[in-house]
Amino acid sequence: MRGIKKTILNHLHTPKTFWELMRNQDVNAVQLINILNNLYEQGIIEMKTQKIYLTQRGEKQDSKVRLNRHTRCDFCDSGYLIDGFGDIYYRFKSYYDTKPKNIPGFDQGSMRCKDVLKRLVFIYDKGDLCNTRILILGDDDLLSIAIAMTGLPQEIVVLDIDERLVHYIHDVSSKEHLNIETEVYSIENKVPLQKKMDVFISDPVESLVGIKLFLSRGISLLANGGRFYFGLTHIDSSLSKWQKIEQMLVNGSCVITDVVRDFAFYPGVYYKNIKERLFFDPGLPPKSWYTSSLIRGVKLEDKISESGSVSLGTSLYKDDETITVK
Amino acid sequence: MRGIKKTILNHLHTPKTFWELMRNQDVNAVQLINILNNLYEQGIIEMKTQKIYLTQRGEKQDSKVRLNRHTRCDFCDSGYLIDGFGDIYYRFKSYYDTKPKNIPGFDQGSMRCKDVLKRLVFIYDKGDLCNTRILILGDDDLLSIAIAMTGLPQEIVVLDIDERLVHYIHDVSSKEHLNIETEVYSIENKVPLQKKMDVFISDPVESLVGIKLFLSRGISLLANGGRFYFGLTHIDSSLSKWQKIEQMLVNGSCVITDVVRDFAFYPGVYYKNIKERLFFDPGLPPKSWYTSSLIRGVKLEDKISESGSVSLGTSLYKDDETITVK
Repeated sequence: MRGIKKTILNHLHTPKTFWELMRNQDVNAVQLINILNNLYEQGIIEMKTQKIYLTQRGEKQDSKVRLNRHTRCDFCDSGYLIDGFGDIYYRFKSYYDTKPKNIPGFDQGSMRCKDVLKRLVFIYDKGDLCNTRILILGDDDLLSIAIAMTGLPQEIVVLDIDERLVHYIHDVSSKEHLNIETEVYSIENKVPLQKKMDVFISDPVESLVGIKLFLSRGISLLANGGRFYFGLTHIDSSLSKWQKIEQMLVNGSCVITDVVRDFAFYPGVYYKNIKERLFFDPGLPPKSWYTSSLIRGVKLEDKISESGSVSLGTSLYKDDETITVK
Repeated sequence: MRGIKKTILNHLHTPKTFWELMRNQDVNAVQLINILNNLYEQGIIEMKTQKIYLTQRGEKQDSKVRLNRHTRCDFCDSGYLIDGFGDIYYRFKSYYDTKPKNIPGFDQGSMRCKDVLKRLVFIYDKGDLCNTRILILGDDDLLSIAIAMTGLPQEIVVLDIDERLVHYIHDVSSKEHLNIETEVYSIENKVPLQKKMDVFISDPVESLVGIKLFLSRGISLLANGGRFYFGLTHIDSSLSKWQKIEQMLVNGSCVITDVVRDFAFYPGVYYKNIKERLFFDPGLPPKSWYTSSLIRGVKLEDKISESGSVSLGTSLYKDDETITVK
């Protein structure tokens, strides 16, 4: 419940009508009414000109700057636009452009700079950025830096296996006063974190054993009501693998709230394996052939958790469906 | 596999590069390569100017008119637009505007006319309209008519409890030479259909027992590899109910491939229950407060099925989370 109430308060950093608020979060009408009635009785929200406002008392509990960034496509009202975050995009891009080069051995492959921002916009739009504790497991996209630049999260922790990247994020964080906590960490080890987080974000490896490990480690660190975001492709994962991942989530006390197709593009992905196996020449791929879907879910209660150590070798990165890993 | 191959052939009604094709369907790269190699060996596809074409032999197997309708938002490339189906929209709208009025007793509530078209565009975009056998369980939105007007499906069957609606769809179908099969049918009875379908579409009731029944009946009629589409709201269904629905799907040999938030809007939904329970006056709702997410999935193999009769009474329409049903 804590997670839900927090999300609703996050949305109220900009006053909204009851009906707008209903649309912009996950809980059902009965739950939303109960939460709002409760906040109203406690004097945390009030109604003015048909909109719900945080009262002075509500503001005091949580003194974040009010932000009203533009997120939805004006044309179709369903896509996401990064235009409202233009200031952050340009500030972020210079760091993105000079980050350490990807190492295939770590299965690193970064999404386009603008897709990092799009992921940020999506998470912001769900009310999951503002005043939350965020864990990012693997961050070769540098999402942590873009998110921290919004000034919205309460805390950001990045764990990554790549020392170069961890140092880079740490240096940018110091220089830009972003307060991102970083630590070198291999997914095979126990997570060096005691506290519960509100949001968990990852672009996991796509072997079944690997992705299960990433998700279970991250989700085990979420408080109940916490949200998680991860990318998953159709290219390296069959629908049966998708099903197994979904089974793990929904049988493990999570619910899937969004699956957005082709959300991010990854330039420069290795495609020699594909070319070699085809009976005809597919020609050169365009820059944007390798796409990933964005999956969002909520942890309802604690059942999924991998807290001990494991040893996986290359099966962490590859199974017989992963075709774009060298 | 039949379903997957069919979808890929559907996409090839318009020649595509290998890389475009990879993006526009569900199977992973290894499966896609195998299917294409097979079609190539059989002389069903060929490569010309870096695109994959159906050969004359391929065209003969399936002589549908080639259609290349515009579907994606030009501005953000992720939303769906109905503009490419303008001819069908205007032809459809006159029937939509004069359809029998909704009866709350049947839990009828129709999405906006343009959202019916948007659902059609989404299904078309996935390659699931062309040359498929489609089952629609409950059709107070008249989606069957719009879909039939594209001339793409092989067959459309509509089952609905409302005799007025069934007659109306039947009459429009005759008048417009659409060949929609219709039958009056209550979800509590055995489905009067022997054959397997490729696509199942529904906007089910949202009581847990009711939605499970709708989905299990529809999915039991799908061939392996068949696709299903249904609407689900956050308003009348909590995240725990979502989780139970997802558990039923993914534990019952289905996989969820898309969950698109706020896909359709339902004007004129009953909101007195909401107003009465709130401690403050929320004001009048705008037309578009009641939204529904669109969920798409694929049946991998047969495990979910409800084929016998059941008797549910009002629990079919309502449970303690449904707040917008009178």
